[in-house]
Amino acid sequence: MQIVKENGPITGEHIAEKLNLTRATLRPDLAILTMSGFLEARPRVGYFYTGKTGTQLLADKLKKLQVKDFQSIPVVIHENVSVYDAICTMFLEDVGTLFVVDDNAILVGVLSRKDLLRASIGKQELPSIPVHIIMTRMPNITICRRDDFILDVAKTLIEKQIDALPVVKDTEKGFEVAGRITKTNMTKILVGLSENEIM
Amino acid sequence: MQIVKENGPITGEHIAEKLNLTRATLRPDLAILTMSGFLEARPRVGYFYTGKTGTQLLADKLKKLQVKDFQSIPVVIHENVSVYDAICTMFLEDVGTLFVVDDNAILVGVLSRKDLLRASIGKQELPSIPVHIIMTRMPNITICRRDDFILDVAKTLIEKQIDALPVVKDTEKGFEVAGRITKTNMTKILVGLSENEIM
Repeated sequence: MQIVKENGPITGEHIAEKLNLTRATLRPDLAILTMSGFLEARPRVGYFYTGKTGTQLLADKLKKLQVKDFQSIPVVIHENVSVYDAICTMFLEDVGTLFVVDDNAILVGVLSRKDLLRASIGKQELPSIPVHIIMTRMPNITICRRDDFILDVAKTLIEKQIDALPVVKDTEKGFEVAGRITKTNMTKILVGLSENEIM
Repeated sequence: MQIVKENGPITGEHIAEKLNLTRATLRPDLAILTMSGFLEARPRVGYFYTGKTGTQLLADKLKKLQVKDFQSIPVVIHENVSVYDAICTMFLEDVGTLFVVDDNAILVGVLSRKDLLRASIGKQELPSIPVHIIMTRMPNITICRRDDFILDVAKTLIEKQIDALPVVKDTEKGFEVAGRITKTNMTKILVGLSENEIM
C-alpha cells in the first residue's frame, strides 16, 4: 500500500520489483487489497491507492443498497372504507401505515396510526367517516421507487418524521402501490449488517 | 498477510527477513494491517492473521455500539392520567411511546400508539379511563439499560414487534426511566454509518 501510495499508478510488475518479489508471489496480496477497495486496478495503467479506510468502504457499499431488496408487502384499502374499518385492518394486518387507493388502484392517500388516533379522539362516529376525509393525500405523500437507495429513504423517514413510505410503480393513471418500506426494515438492515447477511 | 497467514505467530523481524526488507520499512504496513484488524499483534509473540474480512471487522465494531450513545429523551406520564390526556401528550411531544410511572417515579407501564388506538375504538369515554387500565404493565415490559448493546436492542424490537424500549436505571424501589430507544434511533444509526459519523 505504501509503494502504491507513493508511486501510483504503478504496475504489479513494478511493485514486485521494488519488493524483490515475483509477480506471482505478489498477486494474491494485490487481489486482497483490490477486493477490499484499498487499491484500485485499471487495465494497462496499474494500481492506484484509493485513500479509503475500511469504514469508508463500508459506507460506499451501504450507499448502494436499494429499496427493492428490503421492501415489505403493502397493505392497501379503498378510499371509501370507514375510519373504523381502517383501524381494524391496521390491527388485523399488524402494520403501522395503510395506503389508500381509488377505483383504479391508484395511490390517493396514506393513513398512519397517528392520523387514525387523531380522528378517534374527535367527536365524529368512526364507522360513518370514510378514510378519504382524514388521510394525508396527494401531493403531500412522500413516495419512493424500487430502485431508490435505502439510505435516501432512511434520511427521508427521519427528516419528515414518518414511519413508512409507499414503494410505487409509475403508470399512466398515477402511482400503483408495489411495496412498503419502514423504520422496521431499517432496523433489520442494521441487524443484518452485524450478522454479515448484507454485503 | 500471506506470510503471517502461513507462518503466524511470527515476529516483525522475521517477516522483514522473508521480504528482504528492514523492520523500519515494514513497520507502517504492519501498523495499517493491525489497525484495520486484518492482523493482530501480541507483545513478545508476534503477528497473527485474524482471518477477518473488512465486513466482519465492521460487524465487530457495530456490535460494540451501546444504548447510552444513541438514546433519546423519554416522555413519562403518571398512571392516573386519563387515556384522553395520554393521547394529547403523545401528540404534543410527538413520540410513539409513553412510559407510565407511579408516585415514586418507578416504571409501571408502557403505552404505544397501538394501545391507545385500541382503547379509542372501545365503547368507554377516553377522559374517564386512567391509563393504568389499558397499559402494558410489568413484568410484561421489555426494558434495556444504558450499557446494553444497540444490536441486542434492535433484535428485541424486531422479535417483539415493538417500536421503543425504555432505558432504565435500577433503584431499590424498581426501575427509573432514564431514556428511550426506538426504531427511529436505529434508522439514524444506519444513516450515520453511511456518513462516517459513527465508528
